[in-house]
Amino acid sequence: AITIDTPVFELKEVLTGKYGDDTKLIYDLKDQGGELLALRYDLTVPFARYVSMNNIANIKRYHIAKVYRRDNPQITLGRYREFYQCDFDIAGTYDPMLPDAECVKIVCEILSEAGVGEFKVRLNHRKLLTGLFEVCGVPAEKFRSVCSSLDKLDKTPWDEVRREMIEQKGLDEETVDRLTPYITLHGGLELYKQLAEEEQLKRNRDACEALEDLRLLFQYCDILNVSNRISFDLSLARGLDYYTGVIYEAVLLDTDRELSVGSVAGGGRYDNLVGMFNPKRKQQVPCVGVSIGVERLFSVLETRSFAQIRTNETEVYVASAHKGLHLKRLEILNQLWNAGFMAEHSYKRNPKLLAQLQYCEEHQIPYAIILGADELARGIVKLREIPSRKEVEVMLDTLMEELRCRLSLPTLPLL
Amino acid sequence: AITIDTPVFELKEVLTGKYGDDTKLIYDLKDQGGELLALRYDLTVPFARYVSMNNIANIKRYHIAKVYRRDNPQITLGRYREFYQCDFDIAGTYDPMLPDAECVKIVCEILSEAGVGEFKVRLNHRKLLTGLFEVCGVPAEKFRSVCSSLDKLDKTPWDEVRREMIEQKGLDEETVDRLTPYITLHGGLELYKQLAEEEQLKRNRDACEALEDLRLLFQYCDILNVSNRISFDLSLARGLDYYTGVIYEAVLLDTDRELSVGSVAGGGRYDNLVGMFNPKRKQQVPCVGVSIGVERLFSVLETRSFAQIRTNETEVYVASAHKGLHLKRLEILNQLWNAGFMAEHSYKRNPKLLAQLQYCEEHQIPYAIILGADELARGIVKLREIPSRKEVEVMLDTLMEELRCRLSLPTLPLL
Repeated sequence: AITIDTPVFELKEVLTGKYGDDTKLIYDLKDQGGELLALRYDLTVPFARYVSMNNIANIKRYHIAKVYRRDNPQITLGRYREFYQCDFDIAGTYDPMLPDAECVKIVCEILSEAGVGEFKVRLNHRKLLTGLFEVCGVPAEKFRSVCSSLDKLDKTPWDEVRREMIEQKGLDEETVDRLTPYITLHGGLELYKQLAEEEQLKRNRDACEALEDLRLLFQYCDILNVSNRISFDLSLARGLDYYTGVIYEAVLLDTDRELSVGSVAGGGRYDNLVGMFNPKRKQQVPCVGVSIGVERLFSVLETRSFAQIRTNETEVYVASAHKGLHLKRLEILNQLWNAGFMAEHSYKRNPKLLAQLQYCEEHQIPYAIILGADELARGIVKLREIPSRKEVEVMLDTLMEELRCRLSLPTLPLL
Repeated sequence: AITIDTPVFELKEVLTGKYGDDTKLIYDLKDQGGELLALRYDLTVPFARYVSMNNIANIKRYHIAKVYRRDNPQITLGRYREFYQCDFDIAGTYDPMLPDAECVKIVCEILSEAGVGEFKVRLNHRKLLTGLFEVCGVPAEKFRSVCSSLDKLDKTPWDEVRREMIEQKGLDEETVDRLTPYITLHGGLELYKQLAEEEQLKRNRDACEALEDLRLLFQYCDILNVSNRISFDLSLARGLDYYTGVIYEAVLLDTDRELSVGSVAGGGRYDNLVGMFNPKRKQQVPCVGVSIGVERLFSVLETRSFAQIRTNETEVYVASAHKGLHLKRLEILNQLWNAGFMAEHSYKRNPKLLAQLQYCEEHQIPYAIILGADELARGIVKLREIPSRKEVEVMLDTLMEELRCRLSLPTLPLL
């Protein structure tokens, strides 16, 4: 994919009506004259706006950038008000499920290679939900709000969600009872086959379209060796308004941790979002994509890693063994910089040698050059290997070459 | 240096009173309850806030991130409302001018290596200005506002600035006349020497301190081979409130271009900013730094480069020569991905071969694998070198090895 960048703020109206209940979490900018602006809530809506504005017919892009949510931060869960997302989306008119399967594959690849332990990709289809709702008698105007109740099922027991649907969302008890056997279903290809046999679903157009999509998706995911990761899960609804087809969400399965980070990736198909920004444009631009919650992944990785991570890239430190050498240090430093080495020295005129060497050890700098008047008079400096504390004398004339040789060999691991 | 990240918004109060006249360009967030926030205007103030909040005594960091200015964008000049800055700062109590000289050196290195043509680094000292103002009789409460008039001298003739000082800033004509001979001075080491001999400056403490700093800075810059880039320029004032010592600004000298991009880097010493965020902390943390206007540099580079820049990294494209091969394509694609290749294919089931090969050429993808039923029956695929359009038959068994060999050799330049 190619990468693009979009501004951190969008016109307020671009974000309006895209995020369901979560619209309240959008940060607005103050009206200081000019356009009304808001900070982006995700990378999907800005992407669709970009595709529309630039009249793009097809594009495959990734975008790693920060998004903003006016929420309570929960640091240990990797939930912040400002956080990175990494999105991958495929926009364009293509054959069913080929782009969708690639998104599922990419999620599986990223999670496997990140080494965050076992995971599964929960998967459902918005049109299957629509079909089920129709078949069970949920009124059309309540689809979205019933979706948002459903979405709580991963954290809330069914009894409670059932009560919410009846008492708050105003569904009949009978409707909910008709929904119940479906909603709790999850499985794999065999579940797809079971649903595909159900007479009442066979007669519903949305359900049939969804099941045909799912058949293809399972077939492709099988070839891409990721079907073992998939859990076809009829309670997955995802809160965002813009999804129109396949939806999925990756969750980590490691139950050892005290706190679950919940979903670490999610996405789905949104075929109408680009069109919303330019209703006059005849050609629709169907899209499917995935968003990786990189900060949640990092919060998991950080709880596992105890290694000290080196935060600088300095290759060589120029130290002085005694007073009065700061100009000579600058001169050698300048030679190192001009030769392309990453080099530094103390910003004190007459630093103590011990302090300089301690700095090198603390910052895991592999080499130090130690200047002394006696050695300099002989055209020589000391070259110290910091980890082993071994020192050798090197002719100033051959210093750059010596360093180049040594640094091309692996010394300290650069993490 | 190490790198750090700070949030895109700060508490409004953190930014207040730091930017002089430019405070009006700060984007505020709407008051939606909770803290009053504003988008960062630069990376310097957030850095100082970070050093203060984390009780850091010394740090050398760079930060490449976006800043926000509620200004009229001028695209051709590389002036945007959202743009990247690249800052490098050294915080800590050190000996005079060693960190400052490194900042000047870094500016010169970056501008030389970026290949944006000739440039100079204009340089001055806030305390020299303070001393001059005192000596010439500018009232202390008018120092800042006179600085902001001075700062216009690079774009505005002296007559106009003079009129502004008298009519708008309320200086006496005599005061301005006393300032005049100094303000128009610029030069190098010889100018420093001339000023150092002036009796009235010798008697002013601020001027003496500044001149001693400048003497050291010239000496260090000479060793670092950048003194030929420096223009000691008494009209340089820089608008920001927080500078306390050496200030500098890099400007491009290429006059061929129709439009001047103006300053492409700037910075200076700000010894009191960290302390402003925690007045109770006894230890001051003096700082010096530089901000590189990377987008302005890019706008200059873009006017010079006509090369088509490749925007993807795909190494191999899996194409089908005829209908009915999409499952086989997925299978080979999956093998390529699992083997670590950057590979893609068409998201259409039965794309035309010509369309697939055109895609490769347009996107500068070096290789295509072409599948056909006949070849597959013989355990073979065609491997096509896109630039030369040469094709060879390769056994499927050895395809990965063949590709690995070819891709380790330079094929197309990856820009």
